[in-house]
Amino acid sequence: MKQVSFAATIPVLALLALGAPGQRDDWNNQGSDAWKKQGVIYLDHSLNARLHTVPVSAVRLNDGFWSARLKVMVERSLPTMLQLLEEHGVVDNFRRLSGRKNVPRKGPLYTDSDLYKWIEAASWAVASNETSDFDKQKLRGEIQSLISDIVAAQEPSGYLDTYYVGDKAHLRFTELTRSHEGYCLGHLIQAAIAYYRATGSRSLLDAAIRFADCVVDNFGPTKRPFVTGHPELEMALVELYRTTGQTKYLEFTRYLFSGVERDRLKLKDSDIRYMFSGKPFTSRTEFEGHAVRALYAASGATDYFAEAGDPAYKHTLDLLWTDLTMRKMYITGGVGSRASNESFGDPYELPSAEAYAETCAAVANVMWNFRLLALTGDAHYADVLERTLYNGANSGMSLNGTLYCYRNPLASNGEKLRNPWYDTTCCPPNIERLFGSLPGYFYAMSRDGVYVNLYDNSELNWHLEDGAGLKITQATNYPWSGDVKLTVNPDKPSTFTVYLRWPAWAASADLQVNGQSIQISGITRGSFIPISRNWRPGDTITLSFPLQNIPTVANPRAADLYGRLAMQRGPLVYTLEQIDQNGVALGDIFIRPNGQSTAEARKELLGGVTVLKVSGQAAEKPLGEEALYEPLATAINRAKRPITLTFIPYYAIANREPTPMEVWVPISRFDIGAASTSAYNPGANIARHP
Amino acid sequence: MKQVSFAATIPVLALLALGAPGQRDDWNNQGSDAWKKQGVIYLDHSLNARLHTVPVSAVRLNDGFWSARLKVMVERSLPTMLQLLEEHGVVDNFRRLSGRKNVPRKGPLYTDSDLYKWIEAASWAVASNETSDFDKQKLRGEIQSLISDIVAAQEPSGYLDTYYVGDKAHLRFTELTRSHEGYCLGHLIQAAIAYYRATGSRSLLDAAIRFADCVVDNFGPTKRPFVTGHPELEMALVELYRTTGQTKYLEFTRYLFSGVERDRLKLKDSDIRYMFSGKPFTSRTEFEGHAVRALYAASGATDYFAEAGDPAYKHTLDLLWTDLTMRKMYITGGVGSRASNESFGDPYELPSAEAYAETCAAVANVMWNFRLLALTGDAHYADVLERTLYNGANSGMSLNGTLYCYRNPLASNGEKLRNPWYDTTCCPPNIERLFGSLPGYFYAMSRDGVYVNLYDNSELNWHLEDGAGLKITQATNYPWSGDVKLTVNPDKPSTFTVYLRWPAWAASADLQVNGQSIQISGITRGSFIPISRNWRPGDTITLSFPLQNIPTVANPRAADLYGRLAMQRGPLVYTLEQIDQNGVALGDIFIRPNGQSTAEARKELLGGVTVLKVSGQAAEKPLGEEALYEPLATAINRAKRPITLTFIPYYAIANREPTPMEVWVPISRFDIGAASTSAYNPGANIARHP
Repeated sequence: MKQVSFAATIPVLALLALGAPGQRDDWNNQGSDAWKKQGVIYLDHSLNARLHTVPVSAVRLNDGFWSARLKVMVERSLPTMLQLLEEHGVVDNFRRLSGRKNVPRKGPLYTDSDLYKWIEAASWAVASNETSDFDKQKLRGEIQSLISDIVAAQEPSGYLDTYYVGDKAHLRFTELTRSHEGYCLGHLIQAAIAYYRATGSRSLLDAAIRFADCVVDNFGPTKRPFVTGHPELEMALVELYRTTGQTKYLEFTRYLFSGVERDRLKLKDSDIRYMFSGKPFTSRTEFEGHAVRALYAASGATDYFAEAGDPAYKHTLDLLWTDLTMRKMYITGGVGSRASNESFGDPYELPSAEAYAETCAAVANVMWNFRLLALTGDAHYADVLERTLYNGANSGMSLNGTLYCYRNPLASNGEKLRNPWYDTTCCPPNIERLFGSLPGYFYAMSRDGVYVNLYDNSELNWHLEDGAGLKITQATNYPWSGDVKLTVNPDKPSTFTVYLRWPAWAASADLQVNGQSIQISGITRGSFIPISRNWRPGDTITLSFPLQNIPTVANPRAADLYGRLAMQRGPLVYTLEQIDQNGVALGDIFIRPNGQSTAEARKELLGGVTVLKVSGQAAEKPLGEEALYEPLATAINRAKRPITLTFIPYYAIANREPTPMEVWVPISRFDIGAASTSAYNPGANIARHP
Repeated sequence: MKQVSFAATIPVLALLALGAPGQRDDWNNQGSDAWKKQGVIYLDHSLNARLHTVPVSAVRLNDGFWSARLKVMVERSLPTMLQLLEEHGVVDNFRRLSGRKNVPRKGPLYTDSDLYKWIEAASWAVASNETSDFDKQKLRGEIQSLISDIVAAQEPSGYLDTYYVGDKAHLRFTELTRSHEGYCLGHLIQAAIAYYRATGSRSLLDAAIRFADCVVDNFGPTKRPFVTGHPELEMALVELYRTTGQTKYLEFTRYLFSGVERDRLKLKDSDIRYMFSGKPFTSRTEFEGHAVRALYAASGATDYFAEAGDPAYKHTLDLLWTDLTMRKMYITGGVGSRASNESFGDPYELPSAEAYAETCAAVANVMWNFRLLALTGDAHYADVLERTLYNGANSGMSLNGTLYCYRNPLASNGEKLRNPWYDTTCCPPNIERLFGSLPGYFYAMSRDGVYVNLYDNSELNWHLEDGAGLKITQATNYPWSGDVKLTVNPDKPSTFTVYLRWPAWAASADLQVNGQSIQISGITRGSFIPISRNWRPGDTITLSFPLQNIPTVANPRAADLYGRLAMQRGPLVYTLEQIDQNGVALGDIFIRPNGQSTAEARKELLGGVTVLKVSGQAAEKPLGEEALYEPLATAINRAKRPITLTFIPYYAIANREPTPMEVWVPISRFDIGAASTSAYNPGANIARHP
């Protein structure tokens, strides 16, 4: 195989003629503060996006649920993870290429991406108002130092991957289904954009552009074939387009989604299924294959649609979202039913103990639903985002910030779920970059006003799309309370709409503006409540969503979950840990669907949580001693005693000693039997056989 | 690797001094009719076996449930399977070695065993009274011809394996964890013994002994190391010991179970787990690894214990049986929860759709429980034997005898379950050899009388252990009826005990002798009822076990089966096939635990079955259109309508057009709700949180 030389390319300015309002001068006008207005994703010029994100720095999370998580992320997770990345040679893999270190390369072929994700997380933390000035300076210094190591390793062609070097250099771009070159490039771009948006510094962005151009300029339908063996690059390239205004990145994304290289790359059906790439994205009708790959692809396709508006993409995205949320998503928002290939299962295949539900997949699910929410302003996406964020993603990092779940199963026998490090350590820096950027998820602007996507003590300090300044403050104890008080502070009295999310979990909503009750009509839960009026500085909104302990069932087609209840309260999914059940084994526990159910604030527990106390039953004799199969009539008469079950929030699992855990608790057999015993009479069977 | 030459060994007569009654002159006395008294396994001299089997030829199965299956087996399965074995080169693999055919070897390395199992099945069919004289002659001719091909391929050393020849010969016995050499030898021995016991011919037995000696004389603790990569040889060698009286075969079996070759063979932990071999059998405490391997090992260990009496074996066998029947066996008697490695799952891991439940594992489960029954006379083993035989093994062969299940799952989406041939075609000839030998399972003798293990129209024509002739006839419509009439015909009035099995499925038993009711006291179901008296020719026994439709539940620890019912009636497990449900999809169907439940004989259906009609419910709106998760209070109020479910016996699955199937049917949510709706009131939740 001949080694290809990738000439360094000079970015060519391409002004867009998409008819977008506002001149795409962001990149050209390099002295400007363009970076200061760009959010986690930047949608101000995205024709098909209803919402425009706000910068991470425009939001402050005050003391509350998420600020505690972000604080531990910045103070504990980022430093310990950087240390582990160093210890495992991930940074040295770059230093050796520039001669700064003389060491062998270490780790699997995708380690570069782990460092890029750390830089992305740290960059968002630099942008974040929750981070102390001291930490901001420290992080910035660390990032600059890492960027120096990275840029020094880049080849003149722009190529930058620590694995395909030396005697592996001839394999560059020849084994794309496994190489992760596009995946690492994608994360490089996202890290570079995050650092640019946090600081205005182009030091990593220029390097990312050089590597991007090395790909984009040399591959394509009439050039060499490319495929994303692990989708990620698609999202990154659209964001690079949004950042630079250069259409070639958007065009390359379209090429990646076109799936035309099946023949030239000799892709197997199994590759195309596993990678969720390699055939036209718009030919997909359901999720399959590797969960993270598929959700990154869907996220990238959503970004692409936001710019390009091809309705075939929206149609496919709708099919996929329905497939996910109706058939393939855990109640925690976790995704990926099988360890084998880290993949989706069949429809309704949602086993609890075997669940893979990789943290990365939950992060991807949040990212995807944020993009869909931005496209549409449809609160259903925010519901899935919130469910996933509070539960299946949040569980990915321990309360002390130093241990991570790779898998987030919904039941366990007490096996170890958290580790400080994984040989494939994709998940830890992924949850870190999500948390780092989280302030940017809370609010968004639209032509006609502002969207309140998520609830927590916070301040928005931004402006309406007409440029008039706008501050909003939230005071709440969410998610432990459903009461939220907002203050709306436009610079001057101004008519616009405040969109308040009515979460789908809330059976009702009580709303007051300046103390006057507002009748909500024609709107159901799982929607935004629009309040259009002339807002004056200091106007207040009081929202109340009653919190209830909600026994929840799964669709009966989900065979693994049948006959079981999961407890939810507000946005939180709850779980049993055996350690809280007064010595009763989880395997002997049942829940009473009609019993007493209370909530109890426990400040000392797990960083401060509300636990649920729910009526249950325990088998008098351990069920392990009972027969494997027996007549129903025998089973329902087995001795049991009433107990009180103690549920903790799912996100807090595995933060104490190892203990069995279970989200879906079997409904008391007595409650099945209650409808049956009176009428049940085997003798009444009428055998018509002669 | 140096090629080892295996000198042909001459069988040395070893008279046993085990204190067994009766001289072990079977082999020495070659002119005798010793073969005529030997059953499926031969236990007359087994010190630790309470039961002594009877020859297959001592039993006649008259028109009834099993004679129909055996008839189709002889008339359809054996000829079509032999043709397929020929077409796939399995016989030619032998012929090429003797020069009778000049063709390349075909198929995986264990194909020899498939032919041996066919010969074993055909041999038992030759012994069987159900086989017509025409078929007996035809089968005998075919077997002789095959034996001629096999023996011609045997090397002077005794070595006989069509895979390790030519350029693979130097690998003989060097890759025992995968080679299946011991497995093929085991099946050769069993086929040879079956043919000997059916006809008295030693033509294949002599060849089997030569190959056995080639192994037994050259391997061992002080010679070269051996391990059964796929247990099977253990059972075969004990049976060869029982047939020849040569203790060296029993000693080699002890060596195989001793598991001392871990180091010399560099066995990995994963090998030892998967093979269920390679460490001391008596160190096992639970089943793991490959289900068929493990159950064959347990069967061989039971045979070994029957001879050697080492209590450590019995202790291990008891642990394993408890593990199987309390935690790892499907309700059909099927075994093997995972396709991966065709293996056992964790305790209570019993998924329905994903069930592997290989036909071979069910056959092995029957064989093992038959051996345990013979050891002990304990009817619990007969219950498991009967459950497996009628359900999870019987399903392995189609009603027309030409299509086979490899997997026998307990739910399917309508995928194809039956094929005429598998590249690994272990299952079809395995179910054939079980059916061929089945008459030998029905009765057994003991010192003090006779055991009736199974019920069907049949005749026993044998003798008491004192030599006095004894005939027993059974007239019954079992399993469609629980009424059995037996006639006991000793040659002359004689005092002995008739042991009648009271199946565990029967809640009560009604017993009459010569029309006089007998009070059964101190005996519970799942036992043998002993009737000791002076029996006179023509004495009658009338037994009645009331058949009921029994809604059955699984232990709640079996998470996959929770909230579901399986219907049983007599020894039969029932199932829903969607084709019988009047257009309602299985995924929308629920069963009412307290509804009407009847049985209906349907002569025209599936060869004549009794179907069960049970009250159920169907969701008005297909559940596929409903949410994946919703509050219990919403779910239980969804519209549903009453329907009548039609169950067919599980063994008859997949005999019509492809259709979804389900053994474990979800219990109506209404019946869960009935206990809850009245009291359920979300508003009653008391939130103590401030």
